[in-house]
Amino acid sequence: MNNFIYQNPTKLIFGKGEIARLPQLIPADKRIMITFGGGSVKRNEVYDQVVKALAGRDFIEFWGIEANPSVETLRKAIALGKEKKVDFLLAVGGGSVIDGTKLISAGLLYEGDAWELVLKGSYSKTVPLATVLTMAATGSEMNSGAVISRYETQEKYAFYSNYPVFSILDPETLYSLPKRQIACGLADTFVHVLEQYMTTPGQSRLMDRWAEGILHTVVEIAPRALGDERDYDTMSEYMLSATLALNDMIRMGVTQDWATHMIGHELTALHGLTHGATLAIVINGTLRTLHDQKHGKLLQYGERIWGITDGTEEERIDRTIARTEEFFRSLGLSTRLSEEGIGEATIAEIERRFTASGVHHGEAGNVDGAMARRILEACL
Amino acid sequence: MNNFIYQNPTKLIFGKGEIARLPQLIPADKRIMITFGGGSVKRNEVYDQVVKALAGRDFIEFWGIEANPSVETLRKAIALGKEKKVDFLLAVGGGSVIDGTKLISAGLLYEGDAWELVLKGSYSKTVPLATVLTMAATGSEMNSGAVISRYETQEKYAFYSNYPVFSILDPETLYSLPKRQIACGLADTFVHVLEQYMTTPGQSRLMDRWAEGILHTVVEIAPRALGDERDYDTMSEYMLSATLALNDMIRMGVTQDWATHMIGHELTALHGLTHGATLAIVINGTLRTLHDQKHGKLLQYGERIWGITDGTEEERIDRTIARTEEFFRSLGLSTRLSEEGIGEATIAEIERRFTASGVHHGEAGNVDGAMARRILEACL
Repeated sequence: MNNFIYQNPTKLIFGKGEIARLPQLIPADKRIMITFGGGSVKRNEVYDQVVKALAGRDFIEFWGIEANPSVETLRKAIALGKEKKVDFLLAVGGGSVIDGTKLISAGLLYEGDAWELVLKGSYSKTVPLATVLTMAATGSEMNSGAVISRYETQEKYAFYSNYPVFSILDPETLYSLPKRQIACGLADTFVHVLEQYMTTPGQSRLMDRWAEGILHTVVEIAPRALGDERDYDTMSEYMLSATLALNDMIRMGVTQDWATHMIGHELTALHGLTHGATLAIVINGTLRTLHDQKHGKLLQYGERIWGITDGTEEERIDRTIARTEEFFRSLGLSTRLSEEGIGEATIAEIERRFTASGVHHGEAGNVDGAMARRILEACL
Repeated sequence: MNNFIYQNPTKLIFGKGEIARLPQLIPADKRIMITFGGGSVKRNEVYDQVVKALAGRDFIEFWGIEANPSVETLRKAIALGKEKKVDFLLAVGGGSVIDGTKLISAGLLYEGDAWELVLKGSYSKTVPLATVLTMAATGSEMNSGAVISRYETQEKYAFYSNYPVFSILDPETLYSLPKRQIACGLADTFVHVLEQYMTTPGQSRLMDRWAEGILHTVVEIAPRALGDERDYDTMSEYMLSATLALNDMIRMGVTQDWATHMIGHELTALHGLTHGATLAIVINGTLRTLHDQKHGKLLQYGERIWGITDGTEEERIDRTIARTEEFFRSLGLSTRLSEEGIGEATIAEIERRFTASGVHHGEAGNVDGAMARRILEACL
């Protein structure tokens, strides 16, 4: 096991009806900006619950943080927040709203342009931020990361600032989600775990078990989550799985990968494809291309998650990767670039970007432009 | 899944050599009291590492917090700390030293006698507390609980105050532990998990998996932990398992039991038996006596941890309980009261105490004096 530091201060408030706790959770003297995406929270009554809970409190609203939140939009929120002297942020939405609000929370205390913060990669001086989660996928409600896009240059980068002081997770807020969003959320959760698990074997038995615990759960609940999104227990498992998949708890003392995410971010930046949908495609290419490096863990994963124990090791690995792709297809997601009309032009652009950045991604630091091309070609 | 709130602010600093970080972790203006148990930290050089790291800093030492820390000893530490105007506590030791230091941290800011705090059950006004862990068992390094004894009346109660601000866990500090202490630590860890897992089935697939993940790990590492206590990776798994078994992470949204612990505390109070050793005995009685109530979970646990799938449900449960007892015996621990010379007199006294308290313990609230007798008689 590697040395590590773990600290996650976010207060998780989980369960039906918990949005009503908001007034106890935000100090009475705070000038709040509530941030939203589109209008879905008005249709599913989350908006009503939030404004009812905060009746009489000093708040303003900022609407329109889009999927893959853009610095272009967030600059407007920062300007408004500075003008109104906001000192508490409440993000009501999914990962995109929360990610965007993390940049706002840093931007409110920064003199320069918000894109400078993104290029810095991290910034710790922030206004307190809390969340009411309405879409389970990114884990942003209990981690310090965000992913911010810049539309004018088709760029998309990770940015690290603050953990939410609290996050309210009411599974009933997921009841009105479109099935495709649930599918993408399940895929995102699954691949978040793989990024922290499909690495060098034998680093931590315990972290392996916890990662596998989330994978098992996602596999078991997926059919029902897609079949009856008003099943409270199923949506509870889904919501908690998504949070625990990316809140630092399953990466204590172990290496991580994240190459699939880095390639996926490029697909979103270039084609606007939903994050989870990019992962459902790229992960297959990653596992196929790096199967030698991930040999031991692929065998363990195949045996423990999919019960694949017969045949030679190579046969077991082939079947394990095929079974993984089949799982994503069972969610109704594409698993091939060609299904999304993506081909050589995009591969060439991603290869160019990776090469130009000079950064080598992945656990072994070997996912450069050429390797990104191989991975993408393996999922054409 | 039940509604729940999770928040654990402790910063976990894990790995070899991390004690050297102490000066960065404690603000320079703090007047520190370092608390210790007996002299084992002098023999294994942890004491030297701590005082070397804190050279030049303002600290005093308090020695002699015993196993099952007593209010009689802790009153002396509180008096000394008040006299010296201590405003930061660093517990260096195992669960007993940390538990005792939690009472000191509350006692320093309390006017009355420390036993009053224990009888209150909780107290949130505390001096900041941090730990350097040297024995893995209780999880006290990352939770807010403590168990305090009063020798003059042979009482032992739980007390809740503050989470450590940080805890340093260096698995090398475990290298010099006697095998019996490791055995008791493994048993303690295992039963901590069972208290949060062996309850009503179907509450959370994910929490079940995480609990089982710790159980699997403890079962897998136990032979090596008892065979070569200088195996770094094994002791890392053991140390991390003990912490994660009781830091709130495996009890999100699920009910808990703790009846075994309540009975075990009485055995310690009356006979001085080590905490983990009491659990290795009582858990068998609990599972035998409450097997109807725990039917579904016993089947799941038997199948997933011990691979028991053949036979009728009753046969599987019998074999699962027997296999659990066998595991504790493999650690070199007693699993029967009679092996420790404990019999009817003690059972009668525990029945009397439970009945007198009027508290009904356990998940179902049905472990009263009469049920405690049945449980104890089942592990005679």
